[in-house]
Amino acid sequence: MKPTNQLVNPMLTDFYQITMAYAYWKARVHEEEAVFELFFRKNPFGGEFAIYAGLEEKLRLLEHFHFTEEHIAYLKEKIPHAEKGFFDWLKSVDCSGMKIYAMKEGTVAFPRVPLMRVQGPIAIGQMLETSVLTLTNYPSLMTTNSAKYRLAVGFEKGLIEFGLRRAQGPDGGVSASRYSYMGGFDGTSNVLAGYLFDVPIRGTHAHSYVQSFTGIEDLKDHTLEAADGEKHDFVNMVLETRNQLGFNNTNEGELAAFITYAQAFPQGFLALVDTYDTLKSGVPNFICVALSLLRIGYKPIGVRLDSGDLSYLSRGARRMFDAIGNKTDPNLSKCTILVSNEINRAVLTSLGLQGHEIDTFGIGTHLVTCDDQPAMGCVYKLVEARGIPRIKLSQELNKMTIPGKKEAYRLFSADGHSLIDLMIKAGDKPPEPGMRVLCHHPFDPIKRVYVTPASVVPLHHCVWDGKRIYPEIVLKELRDYVLNQLKSTREDHLRDINPTPYKVSVSEQLYNYVYHLWTEESPVRELK
Amino acid sequence: MKPTNQLVNPMLTDFYQITMAYAYWKARVHEEEAVFELFFRKNPFGGEFAIYAGLEEKLRLLEHFHFTEEHIAYLKEKIPHAEKGFFDWLKSVDCSGMKIYAMKEGTVAFPRVPLMRVQGPIAIGQMLETSVLTLTNYPSLMTTNSAKYRLAVGFEKGLIEFGLRRAQGPDGGVSASRYSYMGGFDGTSNVLAGYLFDVPIRGTHAHSYVQSFTGIEDLKDHTLEAADGEKHDFVNMVLETRNQLGFNNTNEGELAAFITYAQAFPQGFLALVDTYDTLKSGVPNFICVALSLLRIGYKPIGVRLDSGDLSYLSRGARRMFDAIGNKTDPNLSKCTILVSNEINRAVLTSLGLQGHEIDTFGIGTHLVTCDDQPAMGCVYKLVEARGIPRIKLSQELNKMTIPGKKEAYRLFSADGHSLIDLMIKAGDKPPEPGMRVLCHHPFDPIKRVYVTPASVVPLHHCVWDGKRIYPEIVLKELRDYVLNQLKSTREDHLRDINPTPYKVSVSEQLYNYVYHLWTEESPVRELK
Repeated sequence: MKPTNQLVNPMLTDFYQITMAYAYWKARVHEEEAVFELFFRKNPFGGEFAIYAGLEEKLRLLEHFHFTEEHIAYLKEKIPHAEKGFFDWLKSVDCSGMKIYAMKEGTVAFPRVPLMRVQGPIAIGQMLETSVLTLTNYPSLMTTNSAKYRLAVGFEKGLIEFGLRRAQGPDGGVSASRYSYMGGFDGTSNVLAGYLFDVPIRGTHAHSYVQSFTGIEDLKDHTLEAADGEKHDFVNMVLETRNQLGFNNTNEGELAAFITYAQAFPQGFLALVDTYDTLKSGVPNFICVALSLLRIGYKPIGVRLDSGDLSYLSRGARRMFDAIGNKTDPNLSKCTILVSNEINRAVLTSLGLQGHEIDTFGIGTHLVTCDDQPAMGCVYKLVEARGIPRIKLSQELNKMTIPGKKEAYRLFSADGHSLIDLMIKAGDKPPEPGMRVLCHHPFDPIKRVYVTPASVVPLHHCVWDGKRIYPEIVLKELRDYVLNQLKSTREDHLRDINPTPYKVSVSEQLYNYVYHLWTEESPVRELK
Repeated sequence: MKPTNQLVNPMLTDFYQITMAYAYWKARVHEEEAVFELFFRKNPFGGEFAIYAGLEEKLRLLEHFHFTEEHIAYLKEKIPHAEKGFFDWLKSVDCSGMKIYAMKEGTVAFPRVPLMRVQGPIAIGQMLETSVLTLTNYPSLMTTNSAKYRLAVGFEKGLIEFGLRRAQGPDGGVSASRYSYMGGFDGTSNVLAGYLFDVPIRGTHAHSYVQSFTGIEDLKDHTLEAADGEKHDFVNMVLETRNQLGFNNTNEGELAAFITYAQAFPQGFLALVDTYDTLKSGVPNFICVALSLLRIGYKPIGVRLDSGDLSYLSRGARRMFDAIGNKTDPNLSKCTILVSNEINRAVLTSLGLQGHEIDTFGIGTHLVTCDDQPAMGCVYKLVEARGIPRIKLSQELNKMTIPGKKEAYRLFSADGHSLIDLMIKAGDKPPEPGMRVLCHHPFDPIKRVYVTPASVVPLHHCVWDGKRIYPEIVLKELRDYVLNQLKSTREDHLRDINPTPYKVSVSEQLYNYVYHLWTEESPVRELK
């Protein structure tokens, strides 16, 4: 499969990856084996978890990692003094010499545990850096954000992503829809995301649709076929209902708009009710049309509120459905209430405290731009070259990298909750169910814990060995995987306010190895 | 020209645009003439201006606005009950019946003045909404953000965009590079943006490059050809210089990395100096290599700092360049200092107050994600249908739309500064240079001002009349256009803290017309 976006190709990179590739080539070390690891240092949104996403698109990039003649011509122009041999090499570059391990797409992930390990010729591993980061950061951020929205409303409420118009570009919009579904949303308004990834799509009508009608005289066709095929004067039925209910002062253009929308979608009638006045016009007009639909055998869906006090208005609408439903058709009470309008997690929490009658939330801007923290800070670090572990020293402890090739395991308790993640040196003996293992904090010599896991799950899988090994997984399955993990992670790690940090650890051997390397490499500074 | 991103096609839309199109079609009003206007209500980033961008990509979408057989098949599946005639019509849809006016790409823009006016069959105008918004919001936000960074550092400093890895997806990254250049940046690290839009690209090397070398013994080739063609033992020259300067305790792996990088880029030597210790190792190693390059006829470029106290370190580096340059080669003093590392506008202001010796800033995350406000709130509103002006009433005055088709003019003072924007009803007599005109605040009956402009510039141009009329403009010209306008806009409108709002007004005729419509349509509510 090709990358979803044709902009994803080897040119989607920082220029320094190319200049470094040339310098490696010139120094004749470009084919030397190197190991890079992809990880993040801090969970996003002030939380204590993240979800790893974007593996599928990275594998597609690897499958098509090839510079075209046009690419090469452009690069020659930009490095005019570079030797021809370099461009010949660049033209031959592909990922057939790479070996890559990664977490499964959709895995709940924690700081410092590698999401991916990239092994192969250093110049190629280097050139992959930028696109690997771009194809990880936003997908993971977006999936995590949407999981946090899902946790905020619980697993029962409807959640629809509405953000395409405010997303950071077309690809931002399409990725937002894809990864919000993966993170637990139920669907999207984005048609292209539906078309490309089979995300369920949802949509009704806008204010402009309502405004485009001025009155009943706009209606060219007054009829509607009932569910049983019989033709009715639907306009007349609606106007009679309106009369009976005494809703004669509602906006007539709005009523006309609802009638035409019901004529087009008799089985899917959902009306936007806040164009003029939600409780005085929109909801009454909806009720007139909905009762008429019920009379001829259709089930109306409900209303959408896009402004005003959503708690108050949803309760007002529900009261009207119930009161009038009681006197007419009880099915009216089953109509649902969908709300939108600048909803974020804080609004969801506040609505929960106020009480409301909302069934489904439509969430746009705040979800898709991740405005709490619009970038994830994944990094891609060299941990080994020519078999020698590499360190980047840093004044800040939490910016230190853990050198060398690592494997990671998730250790579970008997009741199925994840207890701790444990990193070991690649090739060391993995932890085993029922066996007590000493787990060290990666940096703090005092923090250690013995763990006897009931079960052990390896987090890293070979996804690429010269060619793609990891299968393509349909999005719906990835969504199930994410939701299942959220249910098997302790609630206190997931909560929004004051979550408990999840433990990430290293084995005793790895701790000692790293400690030795650090103290050996790190000079004692002099203060004078 | 096709859209830059193949995801930009008629399917990049909200599903409700399609369901509305069907409802319009079913009500037999889909071909009726409607007018939509694109505008924003509030300037982004708490400022008092924005820059309109994204016109080019919108025109490309219009040129290729066509549903394929596969698109239609998907939509049929999603609206299975819809009549066949609708899909036949949908298949025939293109933009040959549309007429579109817009501001020039790159125009400084203010709230409520339409950026674009879209006229044509209502169902098509409606279907364009989402993609028009997506293709306006992020480009305009990004261009505005980059102009604000440019204003923060002044017109003399270097500004390079480094954000690809943290952008919201590949398209976000490419758009960020394109529009940050348009908004006044000097270049980008993004190779693809260079390739696609001729944005100047820049890049050197990363920490991993430095870490991948452990010592002089890694160097397979010790030579470098001088500018005059003579071959030198370059490694020896560097080691001698190092000895002479007494820099014997610098990290030798780093020194080896700098040597190889200089061998690959003798005319473009710029070294990242913070891998181990900026002033104790990185800058001394750079100086050894730079002086050796100077000796054989090359001009080294400078250093990049990516961590630590950028004010302190830049002054420290400059002092070393000057002190050692004085004793050896004065060209060393000409080396430039580039900094990066989580720079935002607040950091720039703070660096300005502390004093620094930085020549160029590399800006990533904060620029490209626009984290101060990651979405622009452009809206696309129906203002007229079948020749009748349309209003969306709102409890909030600033959410009211100004109904009807409008034209806009920018009025300039004799000294060339913009004074006010004036909207008139389309077809009314435009303002003229030297003629006094009464300009009304759009909502406040008291706020009026007489303006006698020295010159008048129409803001709206017909860009599409069944086909594209507006030419394709190279990005460099758009950048010049933006920078010129920034220079002709009063500084107090542009400043970051407490800027003065720029005046946006309506003509007397338009004011009276709107006031009449509003009071007529808006019911007096009863409070009980």
